[in-house]
Amino acid sequence: MQIGLVGLGKMGGSMRERLRGAGHTVIGYDTNPALSDVPGLVDLVQGLDRPRAVWVMVPAGGATQHVIDQLSTLLKPGDIVVDGGNSRWTDDEKHAKELHARGIGFVDAGVSGGVWGLQNGYALMVGGDDEHIDALKPVFEALKPDGPYGYVHAGKVGAGHFAKMVHNGIEYAIMQAYAEGWELLEKADSVDNVREVFRSWQQGTVIRSWLLDLAVNALDDDHHLEKLRGWADDSGEGRWTVEAAVDNAVPLPAITASLYARFASRQENSPQMRMVAALRNQFGGHAVKK
Amino acid sequence: MQIGLVGLGKMGGSMRERLRGAGHTVIGYDTNPALSDVPGLVDLVQGLDRPRAVWVMVPAGGATQHVIDQLSTLLKPGDIVVDGGNSRWTDDEKHAKELHARGIGFVDAGVSGGVWGLQNGYALMVGGDDEHIDALKPVFEALKPDGPYGYVHAGKVGAGHFAKMVHNGIEYAIMQAYAEGWELLEKADSVDNVREVFRSWQQGTVIRSWLLDLAVNALDDDHHLEKLRGWADDSGEGRWTVEAAVDNAVPLPAITASLYARFASRQENSPQMRMVAALRNQFGGHAVKK
Amino acid sequence: MQIGLVGLGKMGGSMRERLRGAGHTVIGYDTNPALSDVPGLVDLVQGLDRPRAVWVMVPAGGATQHVIDQLSTLLKPGDIVVDGGNSRWTDDEKHAKELHARGIGFVDAGVSGGVWGLQNGYALMVGGDDEHIDALKPVFEALKPDGPYGYVHAGKVGAGHFAKMVHNGIEYAIMQAYAEGWELLEKADSVDNVREVFRSWQQGTVIRSWLLDLAVNALDDDHHLEKLRGWADDSGEGRWTVEAAVDNAVPLPAITASLYARFASRQENSPQMRMVAALRNQFGGHAVKK
Amino acid sequence: MQIGLVGLGKMGGSMRERLRGAGHTVIGYDTNPALSDVPGLVDLVQGLDRPRAVWVMVPAGGATQHVIDQLSTLLKPGDIVVDGGNSRWTDDEKHAKELHARGIGFVDAGVSGGVWGLQNGYALMVGGDDEHIDALKPVFEALKPDGPYGYVHAGKVGAGHFAKMVHNGIEYAIMQAYAEGWELLEKADSVDNVREVFRSWQQGTVIRSWLLDLAVNALDDDHHLEKLRGWADDSGEGRWTVEAAVDNAVPLPAITASLYARFASRQENSPQMRMVAALRNQFGGHAVKK
Repeated sequence: MQIGLVGLGKMGGSMRERLRGAGHTVIGYDTNPALSDVPGLVDLVQGLDRPRAVWVMVPAGGATQHVIDQLSTLLKPGDIVVDGGNSRWTDDEKHAKELHARGIGFVDAGVSGGVWGLQNGYALMVGGDDEHIDALKPVFEALKPDGPYGYVHAGKVGAGHFAKMVHNGIEYAIMQAYAEGWELLEKADSVDNVREVFRSWQQGTVIRSWLLDLAVNALDDDHHLEKLRGWADDSGEGRWTVEAAVDNAVPLPAITASLYARFASRQENSPQMRMVAALRNQFGGHAVKK
Repeated sequence: MQIGLVGLGKMGGSMRERLRGAGHTVIGYDTNPALSDVPGLVDLVQGLDRPRAVWVMVPAGGATQHVIDQLSTLLKPGDIVVDGGNSRWTDDEKHAKELHARGIGFVDAGVSGGVWGLQNGYALMVGGDDEHIDALKPVFEALKPDGPYGYVHAGKVGAGHFAKMVHNGIEYAIMQAYAEGWELLEKADSVDNVREVFRSWQQGTVIRSWLLDLAVNALDDDHHLEKLRGWADDSGEGRWTVEAAVDNAVPLPAITASLYARFASRQENSPQMRMVAALRNQFGGHAVKK
Repeated sequence: MQIGLVGLGKMGGSMRERLRGAGHTVIGYDTNPALSDVPGLVDLVQGLDRPRAVWVMVPAGGATQHVIDQLSTLLKPGDIVVDGGNSRWTDDEKHAKELHARGIGFVDAGVSGGVWGLQNGYALMVGGDDEHIDALKPVFEALKPDGPYGYVHAGKVGAGHFAKMVHNGIEYAIMQAYAEGWELLEKADSVDNVREVFRSWQQGTVIRSWLLDLAVNALDDDHHLEKLRGWADDSGEGRWTVEAAVDNAVPLPAITASLYARFASRQENSPQMRMVAALRNQFGGHAVKK
Repeated sequence: MQIGLVGLGKMGGSMRERLRGAGHTVIGYDTNPALSDVPGLVDLVQGLDRPRAVWVMVPAGGATQHVIDQLSTLLKPGDIVVDGGNSRWTDDEKHAKELHARGIGFVDAGVSGGVWGLQNGYALMVGGDDEHIDALKPVFEALKPDGPYGYVHAGKVGAGHFAKMVHNGIEYAIMQAYAEGWELLEKADSVDNVREVFRSWQQGTVIRSWLLDLAVNALDDDHHLEKLRGWADDSGEGRWTVEAAVDNAVPLPAITASLYARFASRQENSPQMRMVAALRNQFGGHAVKK
């Protein structure tokens, strides 16, 4: 089928390639002319036969809002917009309403797979009405991994991004789990070769996983990760997961601890620990570092 | 090769079967005569040619200590004892010393794989001297999974159990991660079918893993886990992981949160939350439940 | 001075009393006629000389919004509204703007002190412009505790509620701290009388505090808190504190743990722990409770 | 009464002064001759009339063990040793047994008050038999704060140090609570003067406490704690509290989070966060810092 694809960065660019590989016709637009198939969004829309499908793959927030605002005026009733970016699930209902008012359908798609997606396929969690999702089936089939899994219609509008958000929250805690274990093993006197312990876990253990495989890859590149700084960014979904937990009164101790570990990793001179140091000094005369 | 196997419970019994399937001669002893190949530990020892290897697979603590004490008098210099139970790594050095004083070798083996080990093989993390471990290679080869991974000589005596302990600590946090995410998804209005979301994650996602596959199995048995109580035991290794972290000043926020969630799950009427309720009532006149 | 007071519940009613005790003229309005000085909000406004000050002390959210909407039409330029309820700080700017458009001033006031405020005075954290706050000084002076502390102009509009919110977040963690320590002491074999240990801490220790005094009161009422259920509600500010932390990338491990402990205390059969139990059963055949 | 005091450091030195101020006869011994009243421990023991009482105030662990070993040979049946250091409660029973075998009594005393103890008195939590504790009453009375609180006979041998340990665990979490709140307030756009907010909390609030007073002192010295590094040591009791919690299956999320925050504060380049960064880079091509 034909599809418009807005945003041809690391993810969007690979998705165009995978879609074309599957025989679909993709018209891609990016603000960077070197990546773009057409000079503008208008050209993208005009290049597609109706009813059109346009997949938006740009940064969450302002950029996505901007593209959706433009598409709401360029598209016609019966067309469909897919937001495949990392939008907050609360934006989806707003976008769906805005487009619905003009007769345009909306589907939200959480996309996982990172830089490996081109090769392995992208896991897709989608939300929206059956009719819109059915219309997009060929595209979802082309993007998803081969095999029985990797795609789900999770529920109504917002469910795709909500599921993807929770996926990322889980991801934070699993990464933190391996990271904590790795640090403790590195500290143990008796253990000679932590990398080989991790490698051995890839079969037969309860904790075998793709992230474990990646950890072994990373340790093969840099045996003790000595070239890296202990600095980890976070990308929105982890924060939203905690916010959703607070909204729903669901305790998420491990996921939240993982998010907070990232916050702390980016602080040069922790204000709260300066206060703890100051208090220890006040009552006990304990040494502080200046 | 020949090997004595002490303890023929859920794990030991399956290991005997896997070892025999690989062509080894196993003399098994268990205090339960219905399971045992021989009437007593003496018979087990006498049935093996020297130098002998005896694998101990009994509960950690007193039971293991008791068997090792007996073996230290029954075995001869050049023989080797393997502790494949879930012993605390700090016991290993003590056991090694006790046996070494009589010329007997000692190897500690952390064994993962649970009820799936018979079929898939057991992941093994072993600690000890090269000569003892080399002597046991055929046994390790038979027990481990087919394929390149699933076995590691982690370091000196104690390293096997330390590595297994950390493995279990990581396991706690990964299980907690999926569990937290599952609860949050179950609370979300937009998501219709959490089980199908979990199922879809089995391919293409960053969080695909064996534990995820098991979660899907569990949800296939009981769609919303309504037949279960939210009650989770813990088995020693999680606690020792936290103790090792405290000893080494390594922060383990996610693993510890996972252990504490299990502690809390077993409390009928949390004392600490009664104090919190009492304090809220004291200063704010807030309602309490009696 | 004259002041209108809207909302005469547990807090508002005591504040009226304290203000009158200090010689101020208070016209109180409540939807409950038994508590109210006047039949309606219109009467309250008409009863005050201009420029008027009206203190709103009703539940945060819809109720506060409703009163402010009404006051914005009833009051005149030069009048001032104080929101002394537990509003989210993000509402303050919205309310200030709405009132400013009609020439009406706005001050947000975080009020602490609970049921003890009538006797001890209310701690006040206020946000807003100097001119509005200066106009209200006599009221603040009457409400605050005697002595040098208990009142602060924290910053611009929103700062009062933000400071009060953080106060409550800290309060959650301090309560949790005593509660955790109490539970551990109750478990210790060697300690005979935990209540007397708590009592002794009221002098000379690093952890003496008003909340400790209240803990002793509670234990005097019910030596082992056996009449209570371990069930603790939360009131908004704890959640907002975590949300503000997430917004600002500030790690709040102890405060968040305290909030989550409350969430968990209200769950009869924790979904996440059912998943943990299910996973343990899947891989290890571990017993579950049904 | 007469008492021997071994260890005249920051704490021991002040205690000697307070005891003498109360009219007691103190013979102090320290390995530093400049502080010591007598040349050796033998002289201290010989200088006291029988039955003697000797208070040990030296670092926990080896130093305390060494002094108790010496005293067990120098003292006579009917004498009493008090360990007022920060010993682990599990050492107390061992020490009591060693001394009991020679007819010497043992009391463990947890002492709080830090550098303020000389002026305000020391809070005391003591464990041991009634007869030994009765014999020491005059000393406890002299050391404790004036007023009704600040002293408790918590239970049998070990109870004093256990109670003091839990006191310190609580202290960790209360300090962390204020520290977290302070950092969040410092980040808030609307709040002008965090120090004045803290100062205002000293009256009328739910969170007023001695540690809050100390926080204000610290902020008066250094308005934004800019002269300090966010580096906080820990002193044993926090770790033992977590170990005791793990032993007793008591969840201590806030106290443990506070301990871990200190561990993390002392790491220059967190190993676990290097692993998290490495994993993010592996699957998502996310930027890392080198």
